[in-house]
Amino acid sequence: LSVVAEDSIADESPTLAAVGEFGLIAELSSWLPPGRNTLVGIGDDAAVLATPDGRVVATTDFLLEGRHFRRDWSSPRDVGHKAAARSLADVAAMGAVASGLLVALAAPPDLPVSWARELAAGLAAECARVPGASVIGGDTARADCVLLAVTGLGDLAGRAPVLRSGAAAGDKVAVAGPLGHAAAGLALLSAGLPAGLRDDPLIAAHLRPAPPYDAGPQAADLGATAMIDVSDGLLADLGHIADASSVLVDLRSDALLPAVTELLAAARHVCSIIDRTGRPQAAGPRISPPGEALLSPPGEALRWMLTGGEDHSLVATFPPEVQLPARWTVIGTVRPGRGVVIDNQPWTQARGWDHFA
Amino acid sequence: LSVVAEDSIADESPTLAAVGEFGLIAELSSWLPPGRNTLVGIGDDAAVLATPDGRVVATTDFLLEGRHFRRDWSSPRDVGHKAAARSLADVAAMGAVASGLLVALAAPPDLPVSWARELAAGLAAECARVPGASVIGGDTARADCVLLAVTGLGDLAGRAPVLRSGAAAGDKVAVAGPLGHAAAGLALLSAGLPAGLRDDPLIAAHLRPAPPYDAGPQAADLGATAMIDVSDGLLADLGHIADASSVLVDLRSDALLPAVTELLAAARHVCSIIDRTGRPQAAGPRISPPGEALLSPPGEALRWMLTGGEDHSLVATFPPEVQLPARWTVIGTVRPGRGVVIDNQPWTQARGWDHFA
Repeated sequence: LSVVAEDSIADESPTLAAVGEFGLIAELSSWLPPGRNTLVGIGDDAAVLATPDGRVVATTDFLLEGRHFRRDWSSPRDVGHKAAARSLADVAAMGAVASGLLVALAAPPDLPVSWARELAAGLAAECARVPGASVIGGDTARADCVLLAVTGLGDLAGRAPVLRSGAAAGDKVAVAGPLGHAAAGLALLSAGLPAGLRDDPLIAAHLRPAPPYDAGPQAADLGATAMIDVSDGLLADLGHIADASSVLVDLRSDALLPAVTELLAAARHVCSIIDRTGRPQAAGPRISPPGEALLSPPGEALRWMLTGGEDHSLVATFPPEVQLPARWTVIGTVRPGRGVVIDNQPWTQARGWDHFA
Repeated sequence: LSVVAEDSIADESPTLAAVGEFGLIAELSSWLPPGRNTLVGIGDDAAVLATPDGRVVATTDFLLEGRHFRRDWSSPRDVGHKAAARSLADVAAMGAVASGLLVALAAPPDLPVSWARELAAGLAAECARVPGASVIGGDTARADCVLLAVTGLGDLAGRAPVLRSGAAAGDKVAVAGPLGHAAAGLALLSAGLPAGLRDDPLIAAHLRPAPPYDAGPQAADLGATAMIDVSDGLLADLGHIADASSVLVDLRSDALLPAVTELLAAARHVCSIIDRTGRPQAAGPRISPPGEALLSPPGEALRWMLTGGEDHSLVATFPPEVQLPARWTVIGTVRPGRGVVIDNQPWTQARGWDHFA
């Protein structure tokens, strides 16, 4: 495990105030190469992006310091990865391939330029996970903390968009990508694991989620009837599909348990490292974030899987006859009714994340 | 002059915390009807917008409380108008017609739902100024103040985009829309004019700028060689064209002076109202915001025209033989060289707005 972020910031870097808004834009753009869909890139009133399909998929997401990330936990490169991932995953969840990002960045004047440069490097690196995607434009402003708003644009290449409203009784429910890993990483950081241990898979899942972008168009091609990315938590996001489709989603605990066991083992491994390095004790039942009820470790891991957001894995419904590739794990079925249950029983813990509750 | 905002907020409105994130989204979407280009609107992972041209113009802009607006000066409907206008004007400045907006809104939990509803009404009303434009999606988050990031998308309908880089020696420079009105309105508000006097044209120009959106595609069709919207100030924005095109822009003071005289008369009229209503004395030479050097009134008005941003008027360069419609006022010419001058002399006051300086 490395204990120093590879992209730590040199203290002598000039600040945004020193280089000014246009110096910052010039700096950022030098780290954000145009992509093959970029007809007009950074530096004009607006960008121009190729949309050969005649439609564009478009989504926007905030990533706010203190709300979605902490600068003492996330390196600027992490923040760039995460900011891009949120929008790229939304594009994928429609069955589209992302082609361009617009990045609005507000920051304090004393922010080092090197921080912004590393942010841009993270944005570019995450875009590179989607062939053809690139940062095509953005905005800058001054604020007391770092605020990001990222717009993702994408191309459906002739596919029908996969909505939340198409699930039908009899469909199977399947997921591509991890569940609960980002939540586990956040809990471990909250319990005192140093962010420098960034090679740990759970910490990395929180700091730099790696959504399975290509699974989105794949699901569309396989005939997915509904799809969403897991940003608010599996139960909450399947709840959106259930509501929009007027169906009941019934998950099978036996299909979820292998992943729970694997997740718990990973968390225990990290806790043992915390013990050895003399960091705050956070093993076993004390992994819970401060102020939350303590759960037994298996319960904690199941809660991460069911209610933890920010992995940006994709969950979709498919007609029963569809043969799914191995990356898609079937975890339940769609039935007549409303809501989401597990083994036909309601889940009683907090169900996801409401920004204003 | 009306002295009460038409869209003041009832105190008994529930808060965002009371209705929750999904209640807020439902509330907003009921005020944001889909437009003719909206294939998938608010409520899924992403929107889908028609782009019949095979290209999409895309831009994003912040509108931050305390930085770009004040809640005690701007009604929520004003904020909606202004947030939409910034992005719609950028789309127009490329020669395109806006077709969709994505609106990211972060707000404190104690914000009344009625504030968000009025914001949505302002966004929708500003979109209605561009046939076919509508809000197609967005994001919500929690923050300590109101943060908006608006993405504008638009269609070129076969036109070449009008960039900043195409101006050539011999071109004429022309502007459509007012200059300095928003800056004058801001100065009047800063000097103590109550925001309730919102029917005053200069106050209205600050609270609800009304960019001449259709002048953008018109300029493209007329053969404009470069174009920009005046968001940072006329000199600063023409400076961007001069830099990108490697040319000198020479403005003629005699072409600017009629507008200066008109602007000054409007400002004096408002100052006389301030005197009559017993508001803080701000007539004549004391219109300057606190802390800035006092200028003679004609100097102040010229400064508003040359360095005041946020009118989002359009300034463009055209080949000399182009016959311009009356809405376009010729204010100068393009010559070999670099930079922006007036009557071949540099302008010595602060030149526009740098967010980090």
